[in-house]
Amino acid sequence: MHIPKAITRLQEAFQRLPGIGPKSAQRLTFYLLHVPQAYLDEFAGSVATLRDNTKICSICAYVDETDPCSICSNPQRNQSSICIVEQPLDVLALEKTNSYNGLYHVLGGVINPLDNIGPDQLHMFDLLPRIKNAKISEIILATNPTMEGEATAMFIKRMLEKNNININVSRIGRGLPTGADLQYADDLTLKRALEGRREF
Amino acid sequence: MHIPKAITRLQEAFQRLPGIGPKSAQRLTFYLLHVPQAYLDEFAGSVATLRDNTKICSICAYVDETDPCSICSNPQRNQSSICIVEQPLDVLALEKTNSYNGLYHVLGGVINPLDNIGPDQLHMFDLLPRIKNAKISEIILATNPTMEGEATAMFIKRMLEKNNININVSRIGRGLPTGADLQYADDLTLKRALEGRREF
Repeated sequence: MHIPKAITRLQEAFQRLPGIGPKSAQRLTFYLLHVPQAYLDEFAGSVATLRDNTKICSICAYVDETDPCSICSNPQRNQSSICIVEQPLDVLALEKTNSYNGLYHVLGGVINPLDNIGPDQLHMFDLLPRIKNAKISEIILATNPTMEGEATAMFIKRMLEKNNININVSRIGRGLPTGADLQYADDLTLKRALEGRREF
Repeated sequence: MHIPKAITRLQEAFQRLPGIGPKSAQRLTFYLLHVPQAYLDEFAGSVATLRDNTKICSICAYVDETDPCSICSNPQRNQSSICIVEQPLDVLALEKTNSYNGLYHVLGGVINPLDNIGPDQLHMFDLLPRIKNAKISEIILATNPTMEGEATAMFIKRMLEKNNININVSRIGRGLPTGADLQYADDLTLKRALEGRREF
């Protein structure tokens, strides 16, 4: 069966995106055959210029229009606190809570030996000079509560200890998410919820 | 929270694709921030030129590089049989089976009053002249076994009857899919499987 090259080409491009398999890629491609050319041009333009119109902050590695980013260069923010996260999207999620007014440090991933990702592949070692030069007094470890996220948090804690950096280091709270049901929670979540109980 | 315009722009473009919600669109956009520019250019190029490099067949409405398409213009195929399907992707699915050697007719959708889609919005009325002029002797109705697909198949059957076209009209077989389990099949599927039983 002959499939036009333009279709297989776009299909392959879609398939390289995370979470999009061959069937979804085919469905998206055939959908685009029936949309106005103006939308295709808009879509293509925003893909091609994405990187030209964004900058990775040289301080925290968050993605923004300026370097340093709008968070690092905002004097209203607490310049002595750094929240360490895995991805730029985590910054957005935390910002939406309006509960944190300090700075961030985006690692760009987690330590994962299975994928050959060690601390060298991450935005990790800029952290020490940043803490020393900028008079940081608090570190919040907000990597995900997964195996890799926990290992990465532990790595950073040890790195700080080895370098004799004695500042306040905390890990984001663990427990039951809002709306959850004790009956259906897994053992580890319940264990962490008990350990993390607070006076009421 | 300030999000770069380039990011929201691409996010909105992704969000217009079927099956991609705001969270997926955000995830895809942030993923693309870290891929090589060459891939972005390739992706953008294949989106922008998709329509220029494909043609909708003026006979069957399948999408191909030429008009008429490679199926309609292939003298090896049975020119007296038409299989009517909803979408170009259905043609691909049927071709993969290597079980049909006739021609196709792509409706481009189904009759769906809730979405204001009637026969006028479909590639429907070219069918009658096509049957008359091309000496078609067999029609296979291969719209999906959904409410709308059944209604559309029924509509076509009645349209042929009204126009006194007395050719062989069949509907694709209904029953249990390969690997299915009787216990878990729904009532309607089992009913259709009994009705569609064949000598063994």
